[in-house]
Amino acid sequence: MTRPLEFYFDFSSPYGYFAAAKIDALATKYGRTSIWRPILLGAVFKITGQQPLTTIPLKGSYAVHDLKRSARWFELPFKLPSKFPIATAAPCRAYYWLHDRDPDAAKVLAQALYRAYFAEDRDISNPEITINVAAKLGHGKDEVAQALNDPAVKERLKTEIDAAMERGVFGSPYFVVDGEPFWGADRLPQIEQWLAKGPW
Amino acid sequence: MTRPLEFYFDFSSPYGYFAAAKIDALATKYGRTSIWRPILLGAVFKITGQQPLTTIPLKGSYAVHDLKRSARWFELPFKLPSKFPIATAAPCRAYYWLHDRDPDAAKVLAQALYRAYFAEDRDISNPEITINVAAKLGHGKDEVAQALNDPAVKERLKTEIDAAMERGVFGSPYFVVDGEPFWGADRLPQIEQWLAKGPW
Repeated sequence: MTRPLEFYFDFSSPYGYFAAAKIDALATKYGRTSIWRPILLGAVFKITGQQPLTTIPLKGSYAVHDLKRSARWFELPFKLPSKFPIATAAPCRAYYWLHDRDPDAAKVLAQALYRAYFAEDRDISNPEITINVAAKLGHGKDEVAQALNDPAVKERLKTEIDAAMERGVFGSPYFVVDGEPFWGADRLPQIEQWLAKGPW
Repeated sequence: MTRPLEFYFDFSSPYGYFAAAKIDALATKYGRTSIWRPILLGAVFKITGQQPLTTIPLKGSYAVHDLKRSARWFELPFKLPSKFPIATAAPCRAYYWLHDRDPDAAKVLAQALYRAYFAEDRDISNPEITINVAAKLGHGKDEVAQALNDPAVKERLKTEIDAAMERGVFGSPYFVVDGEPFWGADRLPQIEQWLAKGPW
């Protein structure tokens, strides 16, 4: 039996948004399942000294241009959010709360949250917005609101982040396929080759 | 008439090495010529706060893994140099000296210098090594040695670096196609699409 493809991402990562829209079609094409693991990269960025992409001198203006062009490349709607980056504890918690009840529904929610942020400029760091996005998919507002404040859900997210850091995840999107790490939406072609033919 | 594709790179950049081996075949396939512009990115890295890839915590060990895997992906010999990164004024000067006499020969020299550094672990920051690589291609040792110390050649390199910074070049490889900037060997597929069909 083949192992599931693991997909780590931060809800504040635009390239993570692109990858989230593509990775499951790729996995399915080669008979693989996937496990999605949203995390908060703030702590990791402190270690790696990384700054928000769009704020880096010289690189920042290119990054904005590349994001828009890459969105068209991936055929996805995109609008640079007016608040960027954001802290994404609320969407992460909503994700894990739902994941433990219905993993497929959690993936649908993750993509809806990503679209809300990167296509509709809605600030998903605001719990109200996250709750509204979930409600639109049929999840009860009170139930989601409660989940976002549930100590067990908070702990669940913390455990995922710790495990990701332990594993060396330092960016978004980050994939692990058969134990092999791949970082970046740029690596989707290499991941496809790996899934099709194995190591090269 | 179509405009030449411009290719900026630092001789200390492994992804620049990969790109140098591929870019002219790509340009030629779509009836384009190219202009190569080696530069020194040290000054730019101070502005962008970028550190040598392999020395960044967490990211560094992934980078080494990705470089080896990407070298196989591009089907190129690769060995992480024992001294990395290096200051590459000598190879840059040799390049521009030769470029002003024979642009095609300068491209052949650039690829030989890249191979010496990234496939044979020879420290091309050492003028002697750069001179030896050039000599192997039939360029007189004394002539090259003189060029490396020629104030006009030094000035030529400085002018190229200033022009690149003025233009916003902040990394290697960096391409400009019809005024459109692309950064990274990862963007070769987008460059190919641009050359084949224009903007998307």
